[in-house]
Amino acid sequence: MTLSKPEMLKQSYLFETEERLHSDVEEHIRQLFSLSHSDNIDEYVDEISDKFIGADDASSDIDLDSLVAKFGDSKVPSHPAEFTSYLEYLADNVIAHSIHTASPRFIGHMTSALPYFVQPLAKLMTAMNQNSVKIETAKSLSFYERQALAMLHRQIYNLSDNFYAEHIQNSQSTLGILTSGGTTANITAMWCARNAVLGAKDDFLGVEKEGLTAALNFYGYKGAAIIGSELMHFSFDKAADLLGIGNRGLIKIPVDSNNRVRVRSLRQAVAKCREQNLCIIAIIGIAGTTDSGGVDSLLDIAEIAQEANVHFHVDAAWGGPLVFSQKHRYKLAGIEQANSVTIDGHKQLYLPMGIGMLFLREPQMAQSIEKQASYTMRKGSFDLGKRALEGSRPAMALFLHAGLNLIGSKGYEFLIDEGIRKTQYMANKVRSMSEFELLAEPDTNLLLYRYIPENLRELVAKKQLTEIDNLFINKFNEYLQKSQRQAGRTFISRTMKTSNCFSQEISIVALRAVLANPLTTEDDIDAVLQDQIQIASEISRLEDEKNYSFE
Amino acid sequence: MTLSKPEMLKQSYLFETEERLHSDVEEHIRQLFSLSHSDNIDEYVDEISDKFIGADDASSDIDLDSLVAKFGDSKVPSHPAEFTSYLEYLADNVIAHSIHTASPRFIGHMTSALPYFVQPLAKLMTAMNQNSVKIETAKSLSFYERQALAMLHRQIYNLSDNFYAEHIQNSQSTLGILTSGGTTANITAMWCARNAVLGAKDDFLGVEKEGLTAALNFYGYKGAAIIGSELMHFSFDKAADLLGIGNRGLIKIPVDSNNRVRVRSLRQAVAKCREQNLCIIAIIGIAGTTDSGGVDSLLDIAEIAQEANVHFHVDAAWGGPLVFSQKHRYKLAGIEQANSVTIDGHKQLYLPMGIGMLFLREPQMAQSIEKQASYTMRKGSFDLGKRALEGSRPAMALFLHAGLNLIGSKGYEFLIDEGIRKTQYMANKVRSMSEFELLAEPDTNLLLYRYIPENLRELVAKKQLTEIDNLFINKFNEYLQKSQRQAGRTFISRTMKTSNCFSQEISIVALRAVLANPLTTEDDIDAVLQDQIQIASEISRLEDEKNYSFE
Repeated sequence: MTLSKPEMLKQSYLFETEERLHSDVEEHIRQLFSLSHSDNIDEYVDEISDKFIGADDASSDIDLDSLVAKFGDSKVPSHPAEFTSYLEYLADNVIAHSIHTASPRFIGHMTSALPYFVQPLAKLMTAMNQNSVKIETAKSLSFYERQALAMLHRQIYNLSDNFYAEHIQNSQSTLGILTSGGTTANITAMWCARNAVLGAKDDFLGVEKEGLTAALNFYGYKGAAIIGSELMHFSFDKAADLLGIGNRGLIKIPVDSNNRVRVRSLRQAVAKCREQNLCIIAIIGIAGTTDSGGVDSLLDIAEIAQEANVHFHVDAAWGGPLVFSQKHRYKLAGIEQANSVTIDGHKQLYLPMGIGMLFLREPQMAQSIEKQASYTMRKGSFDLGKRALEGSRPAMALFLHAGLNLIGSKGYEFLIDEGIRKTQYMANKVRSMSEFELLAEPDTNLLLYRYIPENLRELVAKKQLTEIDNLFINKFNEYLQKSQRQAGRTFISRTMKTSNCFSQEISIVALRAVLANPLTTEDDIDAVLQDQIQIASEISRLEDEKNYSFE
Repeated sequence: MTLSKPEMLKQSYLFETEERLHSDVEEHIRQLFSLSHSDNIDEYVDEISDKFIGADDASSDIDLDSLVAKFGDSKVPSHPAEFTSYLEYLADNVIAHSIHTASPRFIGHMTSALPYFVQPLAKLMTAMNQNSVKIETAKSLSFYERQALAMLHRQIYNLSDNFYAEHIQNSQSTLGILTSGGTTANITAMWCARNAVLGAKDDFLGVEKEGLTAALNFYGYKGAAIIGSELMHFSFDKAADLLGIGNRGLIKIPVDSNNRVRVRSLRQAVAKCREQNLCIIAIIGIAGTTDSGGVDSLLDIAEIAQEANVHFHVDAAWGGPLVFSQKHRYKLAGIEQANSVTIDGHKQLYLPMGIGMLFLREPQMAQSIEKQASYTMRKGSFDLGKRALEGSRPAMALFLHAGLNLIGSKGYEFLIDEGIRKTQYMANKVRSMSEFELLAEPDTNLLLYRYIPENLRELVAKKQLTEIDNLFINKFNEYLQKSQRQAGRTFISRTMKTSNCFSQEISIVALRAVLANPLTTEDDIDAVLQDQIQIASEISRLEDEKNYSFE
């Protein structure tokens, strides 16, 4: 059944005459709130979602203009629609054109299939409607959340039994902060670091009370800086802006050919900040860049930070769960020296969207951002919202605690190892095919490569590409990625990579694969590459016929 | 069945011998990801949640020490537990001691019963696992979210058909930003306002690039300020801190006896900031204080802001949905002049936790915080994450759009009117009972009152309370609220209110009722008050017997 939204809503109005309207609305609303569930609706939703999850293509091929046309009405309907009609509308207009993030052939972003238990837990979490900001609206959950965070803290830092016994349920201690995502976790880390380094001293009340200008002035700095790789996630741009440091104060250090920050340049930047009398808020190490999955040499960065006596933050939003892998954990060596670590639950912990975490080595660190309020958030209480950027928030700890118990460290180890194994498979495949060029050796489970049009393959092999050739390849790959996305059978994302190929900085459009979905098989990987080859030949054929130009 | 966690996990290990371990973990994990749902589990979860939602007390009476003892283990289990065992563990240890926020007698916080459709939608949202940050992971949902936000924008600002036709699906325009909560929405509003007022000009690149110190310097200011009522939500403390303004720059104006900001003092504060050469980032009006539900005189504040040419922000996290009520909308008059407005979906739109919204009158305003990233967030795209504090986030728009359609403006009007009607009922009741004293006339559906011990009632009636009497009453009410919370039959929160009773500022401990749950009847209100009277007499009796002192 395909109804446009206005038709659907007209049909589903429950009311005909003005007189009956008021009392019927009342009755309808009362029913909505007293019903706890409806087996009919549940069955219908399961049917819709099973079909959605089971899809093995990436998306429908609807174009954006057609979607724009579907969602143009800005009026709130005056009368309640019936749920089944609304679900039909949803299925036809929204779900039909959503992205099959669980599809084994959607391997272009950091979203993937999830373990099935997250679905009933989502329903349960919503039914319970706890607000984790304070103990009065999340009694047991406050302690349960602290436990789940302590478990991951231990996985990262592996401190003593005594340490965990002392801090796990101590209201003065904060081992971790659950956030809505990695961005908020990174911002919170920079906030803590700034407030700690520019804290109260003598007569000065600290940056929190007196502001950034007064703080820099008091401590005798000319400005402030955050230092990290040029591949830092754009949440650091947000943090530098928000915190009043300014994006100029976000110092981005070049990376090597494997997308790892150049340690020597980083050390020089620290020295330069000292010379320029800038306050270094934090030095960032990345464990899995969003761009390419590259892991910085965290041990080296830890050493630099320690020498400079600066907060060392590791953005392990993507790569953090490598701590579960015996085989790959060594890549994160040095993470245990970080003052703070960001990990996303909705990435490689395979939990639903909306779970970020910040871990703090020193349990007192978050006191630098503590706030109180008389209606709640009382000093000394177990209110988790006292030390957090966010206020009211759902009990996402349910997913985190469940994931740790229902997948376990061995389960996470298997998932991590599998993703990296499949990435090596894909890297080998790409390397062996003349149609493609591998752009970097993968550290984890992201792969950067590009398609090479037939007439340029020989030049690539001989390393004789000109800058103009490169521009042509860039445009081709951009068009290829867009065409593949539009067709919707498979999906790979794209990014820009800078390289020094022609004794100067050039930009390369890279195809970007993310191999995290446990359902993706080697056959699926082959199919995605074949799909790209097929689309590319179609583009070349049309280009040859001069029917159109992709440029 | 009551198992301690370690026992539970031991029982549920699926594996016995080391040899079988590895392949069994693999097999188990594969099953977790390939199963789309399990009717058994679904039934079990429905059973647990129906029981939870149906509870009419506030919580169990377990004490916090016992909860601390339950969640002391910090080790991630190595092997996956079975889901049914984990659900049993959850039911016995977590859910049994969670807060019955849906209970008609839990009337102390801004959480309430929810319409039943949010439960299946939560399951569907999790199954779909869209990431609303970008179009490549939330195709139709990006437009659907824009539509839902435009609907509420229209409800607040009521601009022309042409305006909405032009902006609703224009990638350059931002009518609203969906956030994880009101705190993030308020912070984002202050961020936009700061970046706009200290933006790029001539050679200066703006605060975003050059930082706060350089910006204040360039524009010739000595500092920055945010001005609003002393009852501003503590998210503004966070905003002032985060943005580098400092909490000293958050200027808090006293309120009148009905908890509304004193307009004259506000006007004076603006003049004083000008004299002191401070940059006023924004003037805040509150539509429903967290403390008491009071609504500032938004028209007056709008006038002051306009005269001063300063960003006017309305924090309508709680009171925003009054726009749906013919009867009460007048209380928000002036909101349509606000440059930005915060509304929470998880408060009086009756949606699950995790939905905040910021609305912007000028669709270009959010460009002041725009960020890009090469792997996504491309300029000109429909990626919603370009102009937002947060990054990856769940498709909470599903709840918002569904709420607007399944409740409708008439449904929301009924809910708002009912809450205010019941608050008047409770206010009258409190006024008529000698045991209680009403502390402020309610503007919306929050009520502040206190219990008066018997020996002091006459003095209260004669207005002859001394400061020492007041201190005694404060301690009594604090102890009463804690005892009521611990007993768990009913729940009322508490807050601090300042008053000028003794020709000086005194602090009053107030009991705080929030009447938002559509399931709460007049009988429930009576029962909550009776419960307090009963607990209070028990306290007085024990106090008289000198068995203990509550002080």
